[in-house]
Amino acid sequence: MAQYMSMDHLRFLLYEVLEVDKLCELPRFQDHDKEGFDILLTSVKDYADQFMYPCFRECDEKGAYYEDGKIIVPEQVGEYMKASGENGTIGMTFDYEVGGMQLPHVVEVSCGHIAEAANNHLTGYSGLTNGSANLIVTFGSQELIDTYVPNMLAGKWGGTMCLTEPQAGSSLSDIVASAKLNDDGSYSIEGQKIFISGGDHEYSENFVHLVLARIEGAPAGTKGISLFVVPKHRPENGELVPNDVVTAGDFQKMGQRGYCTTHLVFGEENNCKGWLVGPENKGLLCMFQMMNAARIDVGTTAASVASAAYYASLQYAKERPQGRRIQSGGAKKGDAPQTTIINHPDVRRMLLLQKSIVEGSLSLCLLAAKYQDLAEHGPEETRTMYHDLLELLTPMVKTFPAEKGQVAISNGLQILGGYGYCSEFSLQQYYRDVRIMTIYEGTTGIQSLDLLGRKVVAKNGEVMKNFTKEIIETIKAASNYDDLKPYAEALKNASKTLESTLMHLLQFAMSGEHERYISDASIFMELMSTVTIAWQWLHMATIAKTSLVTGNTHLSTEFYENKIHTMKFYFKYELPKIKGHMETLKHQDSLTILEENKTILA
Amino acid sequence: MAQYMSMDHLRFLLYEVLEVDKLCELPRFQDHDKEGFDILLTSVKDYADQFMYPCFRECDEKGAYYEDGKIIVPEQVGEYMKASGENGTIGMTFDYEVGGMQLPHVVEVSCGHIAEAANNHLTGYSGLTNGSANLIVTFGSQELIDTYVPNMLAGKWGGTMCLTEPQAGSSLSDIVASAKLNDDGSYSIEGQKIFISGGDHEYSENFVHLVLARIEGAPAGTKGISLFVVPKHRPENGELVPNDVVTAGDFQKMGQRGYCTTHLVFGEENNCKGWLVGPENKGLLCMFQMMNAARIDVGTTAASVASAAYYASLQYAKERPQGRRIQSGGAKKGDAPQTTIINHPDVRRMLLLQKSIVEGSLSLCLLAAKYQDLAEHGPEETRTMYHDLLELLTPMVKTFPAEKGQVAISNGLQILGGYGYCSEFSLQQYYRDVRIMTIYEGTTGIQSLDLLGRKVVAKNGEVMKNFTKEIIETIKAASNYDDLKPYAEALKNASKTLESTLMHLLQFAMSGEHERYISDASIFMELMSTVTIAWQWLHMATIAKTSLVTGNTHLSTEFYENKIHTMKFYFKYELPKIKGHMETLKHQDSLTILEENKTILA
Repeated sequence: MAQYMSMDHLRFLLYEVLEVDKLCELPRFQDHDKEGFDILLTSVKDYADQFMYPCFRECDEKGAYYEDGKIIVPEQVGEYMKASGENGTIGMTFDYEVGGMQLPHVVEVSCGHIAEAANNHLTGYSGLTNGSANLIVTFGSQELIDTYVPNMLAGKWGGTMCLTEPQAGSSLSDIVASAKLNDDGSYSIEGQKIFISGGDHEYSENFVHLVLARIEGAPAGTKGISLFVVPKHRPENGELVPNDVVTAGDFQKMGQRGYCTTHLVFGEENNCKGWLVGPENKGLLCMFQMMNAARIDVGTTAASVASAAYYASLQYAKERPQGRRIQSGGAKKGDAPQTTIINHPDVRRMLLLQKSIVEGSLSLCLLAAKYQDLAEHGPEETRTMYHDLLELLTPMVKTFPAEKGQVAISNGLQILGGYGYCSEFSLQQYYRDVRIMTIYEGTTGIQSLDLLGRKVVAKNGEVMKNFTKEIIETIKAASNYDDLKPYAEALKNASKTLESTLMHLLQFAMSGEHERYISDASIFMELMSTVTIAWQWLHMATIAKTSLVTGNTHLSTEFYENKIHTMKFYFKYELPKIKGHMETLKHQDSLTILEENKTILA
Repeated sequence: MAQYMSMDHLRFLLYEVLEVDKLCELPRFQDHDKEGFDILLTSVKDYADQFMYPCFRECDEKGAYYEDGKIIVPEQVGEYMKASGENGTIGMTFDYEVGGMQLPHVVEVSCGHIAEAANNHLTGYSGLTNGSANLIVTFGSQELIDTYVPNMLAGKWGGTMCLTEPQAGSSLSDIVASAKLNDDGSYSIEGQKIFISGGDHEYSENFVHLVLARIEGAPAGTKGISLFVVPKHRPENGELVPNDVVTAGDFQKMGQRGYCTTHLVFGEENNCKGWLVGPENKGLLCMFQMMNAARIDVGTTAASVASAAYYASLQYAKERPQGRRIQSGGAKKGDAPQTTIINHPDVRRMLLLQKSIVEGSLSLCLLAAKYQDLAEHGPEETRTMYHDLLELLTPMVKTFPAEKGQVAISNGLQILGGYGYCSEFSLQQYYRDVRIMTIYEGTTGIQSLDLLGRKVVAKNGEVMKNFTKEIIETIKAASNYDDLKPYAEALKNASKTLESTLMHLLQFAMSGEHERYISDASIFMELMSTVTIAWQWLHMATIAKTSLVTGNTHLSTEFYENKIHTMKFYFKYELPKIKGHMETLKHQDSLTILEENKTILA
């Protein structure tokens, strides 16, 4: 069995860095303990080893496709959904009373990481079922919950999120799908939705679509959008009858080919019924309450795919003999035996780059999930603070692992040279699979507008202040160790760079130049997320150092030393990039705001 | 017909920036003139429009594959090779006496750019035939030339370069293919070669492989490698007889799927004959004399694929309505009609990033090709200088367009959102196709070792001095215009950053720490090539400014203004990155030189 993720790193994050066992002191999680978490993680890992990883290549080769009005997916989807229902992973964070296990989100995300690293073509099917069931549980009537949720958590009915329409894309205010109230309290739904992941296949008896649509007469824009449950088959008199939801096609993608991406047509024959979830015209608000979790999930998937690519390239680098090391004097010893390529500094650089991105990303994803747990179930007095921090982190959690995961995997592919580009090795598949992650659930551009336009200025800067406070605490803790002091100092300077750059940009906002303020939001995202991951690394290194000093033997000395080494790598090779970001963001030229429709000709 | 490259930009580079018409004053090129160049470029463009671009997607879909001992390639390969032979493009730079046209390399690369942007799956078939014929012409006997070259230039026989072996990869000193002298002066060849592009298909009557192998008793390492012509069918008594070259397979690749990548087995039945090209044991030297051209070609192909991706995403951005611009005050006008996405600053940023990479890359590729012309056929007294400058530029010409072309195309894909990831749009194909360019003809790691380890220190720094002199001339010319002065100043500082970083690194070389000196060569490559492209941009902007000031009407005012605008973009968004590179390269930590075989565990 090839390695695709590290249980050691995961346990290090959960128990030493995030101390998630302390969550069990909260009433919500009182039935759980560390041993229980560990048993769960181990069982997920076993399942991933035995079933998910072995069929990863096959899911890509078979792919999903449209044929005679049906979507054909790899047969493994059926087995996966059945197992997900049986082992209870779909609703693991849900309340007991709706059939859940009341586990913390951070444990759910950890299980997700294992599964996504093993096979990212399957995990979306259960993930979206979880997300849509959660919407019903949170905002739906008891009748809707009773009708739909048990079968969804059992893995029998699939769930989807139907936002995107052909003419609107990311611009949800332009949604035109319509809903008309019927006498029986249901609505007649009409419209088309595209890019609907997991939207149809033969291995689920039914599909429960969570659809954004406008009720007749609703206001224009985002304030007139409502949320509906629209099943593929509707329950009527104890039976399931077709609900006029037609599958019109499957988008053929460059990657994640085993994960179908459907085009759905609702109500073509005026016989499609939907049921309102949450208040009228508040559909977007409901949807966005689930969005943090969905975005953490995309970030985690990106980090997980990058993790699998890292271990695949590490294994190759350890086994592949090629070339010789450079001797002092600059020559190579021609008659020496070939060295394995892991000993070439540039290959080590590409390995450490991957490791620093993968482990730094995962650290941030799990931190966000823990914040979500504290925001929902922590002590009352700190819930708002954690909620706000989660809101601030979310666009970075979605973006950094996705953007940098692509860079990481490209470096993994490069380590294999020509073989990395060939279908017989998995690197090219990871490279194709991960490319969608900067697009799913809001593109990098959208996330960056959210971060700079809303999140960093929320509550008059109070949230940003709390964020900085967390960083300063890490700097203080690291400064207790002489050999970490230079890195603590570097993070302090980086934090100042972030602050001064933000202050510079805010001048535009304050003088009413909002388009200018926001125009380089993507570069600001790069800067701030680079600093944020540096914070994660310094925190991890400090914990590792403490373990070395105190003689903690949970993990090996080598493990802790490598953690500190990787932190140093990130601080040498990645953190300095913010110098360039700052210069760009403070540059006097405004070059991307041009007169309307001006084309840039060659 | 969709646009995939810009004839305006190409002519601007050729006639205004590089003044290639002046090459016609040299004896070698005295039969040519600008009008002739233009007719040629136009005819290549017509052919690319009518034949190459329309079958670009089909070449990917059909792909090349192995079946019953044969390689099946898209049928368009046959038509393309026939046309290439008929229109004389395979040997356009060759001497008249061997059937060439004695055109400058810079014109050949320009034709290549058009063709590669139209369809990069086809161009390698003729490009490698050109390269291998050139090896025979330069180093082969008259008999070899007479036997092979006419059919190669006629497009009837394909040519290949056979370097890589399964156990050796980039490490050519470990080649084991063998050659044993026969009584008739030929050699018996035995061995396996992998990753042989264009190595076999039904549309060429014969294949002429240029094979690196060791003559029995030759010294170990690179000093014992010789070069051979090894045909698939050897001419014997006026007939072609099989030469025991067996095609064992075709590597299935993520991209460039129409361009076959074969596995060849020589002499399995002891009946494979080869003929020595150049002196015994000097095979690598011969091969490397052709390498500059091959590397310029890969760089140009990368820039060309990125060009096609740029225009595809530009067209989409101009046509796709979505969202609204942000008004002053930060709000969006919900009831306004949607804007086309080109008006969103972040989309413009992604377009300008592509444009700055594509056009900057092409400028460097053509400059290198012109240096090659001057090194080979220019005035005697400057040949060495241009040769050395070409040697210095080559690793960057190979690397910058390939590395940054991947970034550019990823941004192009991102502009299309979910559609960019779907097979029905071309962006995902460009994204897959371009990924090999950092691997072909020496990986980025290899190029970086060449740049820092050999090229920048060549002739005791004299070459580097001449390079800096060229940059200073550009700075001076730009400083004549007030509005270009800030950018001239920025390039001056960048040049100093490059110099001081190199000085810092050289301390390690001088103290014998060669592995440390070279360990971050890839980061040095990023720094130096970023500065080099800034130099290209300032040069282009200065020429454009001069045209605006003098009222030159070769191209539109808008064209010249856009050139200056794109220079500013590069200076704001790309050049500042060297601050980070410098900090990384000057960082005290050495993190990638570890004890032998130390694994980096998670």
